Amino acid sequence: MRKYLLLFFVVIGMWSCTGKSAESVHPPLFAEELARTQVQIDGFMEQGFEVPTPKDMAGGYTHEVHKQNWKTLQGAAALYRHTGEERYAEFVRDILLEYAAVYRSWPIHPTDRSYATGKIFWQCLNDANWLVYVSLAYNDIYDWLDEATRKKLNEELFRPMADFLSVENPQFFNRIHNHSTWGNAAVGMIGLVMDDDELVQRALYGIPVDQLPDDLRDDDAGLIKSETGRAGFLAQLDLSFSPDGYFTEGPYYLRYALSPFLLFGRLLADKRPDINVLEYRDGILGKAIYGMLSQAGPQGDFFPLNDSQKGMSVYAPEVVKAVDYGYFYYGKDPELLSIAARQGSVTLDAAGLAVAAAIDADKAQPFRPASVAYTDGPEGTEGGVGVLRADGVDGQTSTLVMKYSAQGMGHGHFDKLAYSFYNETGEVIQDYGAARWVNIDQKGGGRYLEENNSWAKQSVAHNTLVIGGTSHYNGDIRIGEKFHPDRYAFVADDAGLQLISAKANNVYPGRELHRSQWLLADPAFAQPLLIDVFRSKGSVAATHDLPTWYHGQLLQTNFPYVTRNTLVSLGEKHGYQHLWTEASARPDTNVLRINFFNEGVFYTQSSVARPGDEMLFVRLGANDPEFNLRRDQAFIHRRPGVSTTTFVSVLETHGDYDPREEVARDPYGHVTEVSLLVDSEAYTAISFKHENGTTWRLLLANQDATGNANHELTINGTAYRWSGVHHLIKID
Amino acid sequence: MRKYLLLFFVVIGMWSCTGKSAESVHPPLFAEELARTQVQIDGFMEQGFEVPTPKDMAGGYTHEVHKQNWKTLQGAAALYRHTGEERYAEFVRDILLEYAAVYRSWPIHPTDRSYATGKIFWQCLNDANWLVYVSLAYNDIYDWLDEATRKKLNEELFRPMADFLSVENPQFFNRIHNHSTWGNAAVGMIGLVMDDDELVQRALYGIPVDQLPDDLRDDDAGLIKSETGRAGFLAQLDLSFSPDGYFTEGPYYLRYALSPFLLFGRLLADKRPDINVLEYRDGILGKAIYGMLSQAGPQGDFFPLNDSQKGMSVYAPEVVKAVDYGYFYYGKDPELLSIAARQGSVTLDAAGLAVAAAIDADKAQPFRPASVAYTDGPEGTEGGVGVLRADGVDGQTSTLVMKYSAQGMGHGHFDKLAYSFYNETGEVIQDYGAARWVNIDQKGGGRYLEENNSWAKQSVAHNTLVIGGTSHYNGDIRIGEKFHPDRYAFVADDAGLQLISAKANNVYPGRELHRSQWLLADPAFAQPLLIDVFRSKGSVAATHDLPTWYHGQLLQTNFPYVTRNTLVSLGEKHGYQHLWTEASARPDTNVLRINFFNEGVFYTQSSVARPGDEMLFVRLGANDPEFNLRRDQAFIHRRPGVSTTTFVSVLETHGDYDPREEVARDPYGHVTEVSLLVDSEAYTAISFKHENGTTWRLLLANQDATGNANHELTINGTAYRWSGVHHLIKID
Repeated sequence: MRKYLLLFFVVIGMWSCTGKSAESVHPPLFAEELARTQVQIDGFMEQGFEVPTPKDMAGGYTHEVHKQNWKTLQGAAALYRHTGEERYAEFVRDILLEYAAVYRSWPIHPTDRSYATGKIFWQCLNDANWLVYVSLAYNDIYDWLDEATRKKLNEELFRPMADFLSVENPQFFNRIHNHSTWGNAAVGMIGLVMDDDELVQRALYGIPVDQLPDDLRDDDAGLIKSETGRAGFLAQLDLSFSPDGYFTEGPYYLRYALSPFLLFGRLLADKRPDINVLEYRDGILGKAIYGMLSQAGPQGDFFPLNDSQKGMSVYAPEVVKAVDYGYFYYGKDPELLSIAARQGSVTLDAAGLAVAAAIDADKAQPFRPASVAYTDGPEGTEGGVGVLRADGVDGQTSTLVMKYSAQGMGHGHFDKLAYSFYNETGEVIQDYGAARWVNIDQKGGGRYLEENNSWAKQSVAHNTLVIGGTSHYNGDIRIGEKFHPDRYAFVADDAGLQLISAKANNVYPGRELHRSQWLLADPAFAQPLLIDVFRSKGSVAATHDLPTWYHGQLLQTNFPYVTRNTLVSLGEKHGYQHLWTEASARPDTNVLRINFFNEGVFYTQSSVARPGDEMLFVRLGANDPEFNLRRDQAFIHRRPGVSTTTFVSVLETHGDYDPREEVARDPYGHVTEVSLLVDSEAYTAISFKHENGTTWRLLLANQDATGNANHELTINGTAYRWSGVHHLIKID
Repeated sequence: MRKYLLLFFVVIGMWSCTGKSAESVHPPLFAEELARTQVQIDGFMEQGFEVPTPKDMAGGYTHEVHKQNWKTLQGAAALYRHTGEERYAEFVRDILLEYAAVYRSWPIHPTDRSYATGKIFWQCLNDANWLVYVSLAYNDIYDWLDEATRKKLNEELFRPMADFLSVENPQFFNRIHNHSTWGNAAVGMIGLVMDDDELVQRALYGIPVDQLPDDLRDDDAGLIKSETGRAGFLAQLDLSFSPDGYFTEGPYYLRYALSPFLLFGRLLADKRPDINVLEYRDGILGKAIYGMLSQAGPQGDFFPLNDSQKGMSVYAPEVVKAVDYGYFYYGKDPELLSIAARQGSVTLDAAGLAVAAAIDADKAQPFRPASVAYTDGPEGTEGGVGVLRADGVDGQTSTLVMKYSAQGMGHGHFDKLAYSFYNETGEVIQDYGAARWVNIDQKGGGRYLEENNSWAKQSVAHNTLVIGGTSHYNGDIRIGEKFHPDRYAFVADDAGLQLISAKANNVYPGRELHRSQWLLADPAFAQPLLIDVFRSKGSVAATHDLPTWYHGQLLQTNFPYVTRNTLVSLGEKHGYQHLWTEASARPDTNVLRINFFNEGVFYTQSSVARPGDEMLFVRLGANDPEFNLRRDQAFIHRRPGVSTTTFVSVLETHGDYDPREEVARDPYGHVTEVSLLVDSEAYTAISFKHENGTTWRLLLANQDATGNANHELTINGTAYRWSGVHHLIKID
């Protein structure tokens, strides 16, 4: 990325200083993209193309060649469109004719490993990827081609391929699923290019149900016909996202799933204005774009919710079109330009040109996503994800993510009411992400590893309560898919005190969980405090474990602990089998203070302790026979044998230390007391104190979060009255 | 640092685009430095100053105030010099008068914790720091002061302080030691300012031995008088560095130790040209500057040899003057300018002005240190440190550091013939550095931790052979200080094949060790290969352990290993007590291949195996009762029960993977065979093979490294003849 950043500065610098030269017809970012594409495509043209008979799995030779071909076709066609040089159009035509010559003679791909085996690739999904991108290329040269060649390509390549991906594979085409979205887009896009209304209709509305066999099943053996009764692209738009653009699998998968929506959407906007796809469902495509871009930490890495490979980012190549189309079609938001500038890349179309020109005109503004609560589920009724952002000194932003969404289908984790915490250094309190090294063959062929189930999905891998050593929903997706937590409150209108609160009553049978987290920005603290109140109510006594997966180095605690001479795993199942207990403590103090250091910043968590509480210092890596797990660390606040209890903590972010300067500024936390004052059905009240004497009391109504409800609570003889879900009192 | 980089671009950009404005009298980097200083000093002036009665240890209030005072004085005086504004001179004068009013009334610092307790601070060393910097401030306003004030300050503050730091504390002043260098510089600098020849003479040559008590001892109870018979600044220049500028404690301590040399040196150059200090000992100050800057990885972090806090860097504030003076006094090397530009800071003197002007004139060139072998010891006869640098594709540089230096005094590690390996991602095969969190109070008050002795200094903490589970020199500094390894060969004139080779015959009694490492840059490999041949010759059978402390994630091995269900420490002492054995193997193969991934790059080490060899996968952290150790990892190649043996390995750096793109390029190593063909007293020959069939044979003369010696060796009937220490044959 640094490379791109520098390039960006150099180009912008040259542009700004020298003025636009007479030859420059494009703004720099666009001109650069064109030049880069030209270098690549000229290289491929020199080398010649190949259309090998399909044979290999992903990663194998024929797979990679066909994958490269779609990129080459797309790039060459775009060059023709922008330069008018016919050699590019001829190159595209020749490759397509070669495909047309062999396509119909190819049998189904010999691997036979998918519920919907493709012809070019091992699965229809990849064939659909191919057709989506090649449709764009075909569109670029369509008018240039002579009638006979068009007819040949339409009839011998594209229509057969579109039929193969739809009517010949309805189990792939007719589901509500991101695979089907690719299929719908592929069929619809080629239909738009060829002006084939039947295909467009099929793409938009699916194959009519009465044309399908009754017992057609998907890859999970579910019946295709019984699902929703709806299919096709418009149904995907209706059912794939929540009304505010959240994607139930999380942003990592959204990044992948969004491509066919955007590409077909763009073509539809051009060729079928009657559908008004950009405004469809109140502009759901724009909402999905913003949803994706906002579900990332300050450094642009997506929140690794559910099965996510960490490091995927708003600066990934796949996200370029989301930013450019978001800008072009949804309001010319100057904040998107700063992302585009750092991406250092634009789409080779009108959107990319507009973005590049706007950046050149110095319109870019920093991208500053606000606090936001996303709903989950097509109706927005299945919980969601809340994101709080608060500013501290030195322009630092702290970001809190709380997850109370639905299960997220097969990629969901058992992590209800879990949170993670970020600042300008990146992750501080982390979510593990997936146990998978995507496309790294050495690790299980790049597929999900066994530890994804045994570890990454389990509750103890997340920053949430684990009760009785058992994962949420007993770690059973069939149970998880029946339920979801519910948002209780979201307050973000006061930058000084923001709240996200959610309840989950079915995570453990007969138990009610209620977590509330605040970001408090107060001048007494350099950076916002993260305040956490986690209530658990049940009738059966059980061990409560609350892990905090922190990055960095443990510096100091205010209680003694004992390290172990022999490490054994903490448990046998639900992820505990992967944890070594490095140290443990039975603290004899009211407040447990843990001070740690990460990436130049100090942190202190102060938690309310009860008699009998334990603190476990664990490290990941037990029962990991192939070194698939990272050696991450957590402290687990354990409270044995309680039926109803509440965990309270305050996390301070403070000070800094740079090994180049060796000066530790503000290395100790300032919170001296934390206590739980009241904890009833109706109200919870906590207090904490700064060492300078200032005390805060934070009061929460547990049963009524409406903004205008009036509340009264008497604490130690003082009656507090307020309206709204919470009330903060600062006593200097 | 990013902040500075951006600032740099912005300023350079503004400067380049707008042209120099009429008001600008200074180039941007210098103007910025002045402006930054002015903001700081104006703030301090507004706030007022304080000269508290000394009381606290480092980190405490009075310590920090007096420390800030020297910085404030230096900054304010420099502002007076550059702006001519008298308010700055008055501010300096007033603070100095306040010190003069109380200094003589202060007793020795009440802490009494040092072998040489100071007056302002807890140790004379800090008092000397104060006087060095305040001398510069005093120099700036000396001519502006009236005669009476000068006299008062000279007689009531500076001369008493200089006497205190010298004749009243000869155990501090008269050693050959970096503490004494500070003392010498302080006394000499104030002497130069006050034109006090007696002080200058004392600083340059020390207190005459006949004026010292016979039984005067230093902080290690060594006799001061018996050491070398020499003392003072010129003796320090003669004895602190090797003839090529290596500092026996390593670059981390050199960075600290160099300051008084440079500051007194600069003043001497101005005021006592007769001494010609810049050319003294063939320009030793310049050599030390270059030595320091070259002992860093591609990202600028110093090699953490011996006791070093990692992260200290050529971009540290303390290194600014080394770069500026190196540029100004030693040849105007344009490569130093690129370091200065990234430092984003210059000295507020003629050197800094010259650097800023040269950067502004676009003279900066990338800093590209060459391969180099430093000698150790004042005569250059006590081993040394070798650094090889070789380029691969994409402008990547690989850097190998082999250490065969003397013990390095109290800060030395028992790591003879150890190496570390870097590339553009930073450390790949790492040296642990020190077990210390400098100035982080939570960790043992910021001092060296117990684990520095029990772990960081031990041999197994380094990438070198550990025999019989015992550290080099039995982990005894008294033995270590008697011996040193010797360089055997250093060949860097061929960028394609570079060699560093050293022998150590006293590390283990009766045993000869000989390690040779090559960087081979060959088009068959994207990045240079690191080839390692480590020979051990003895008459007693013992277990040989060769650890490789790698960063990153283990991906795959070509042999099965067994992970442990219970972790216990690998041993009881010499560092082994801190290691958990996570997994182990008894491979049944001729080549042990270990494939790992770090920071976007893949690595494969292929090692020759013998029957009976084991591979241990260890993790640091056992017997670490206060979480002082990082959880670093190594694989240890163990060969039990051998008296004479040789370890051979080839490390490949290959491919890349970015989680934003999810494409693994070139993830597997290409070396398929590695073997030891010949291993005699006279010659060692190895071979290795690329999967494409190309084979390399590498022949080494073990007893004669002279460049013109002729050698002949017959392998499998083929006679090879060559001259020089080594010979490479490539067979396509």
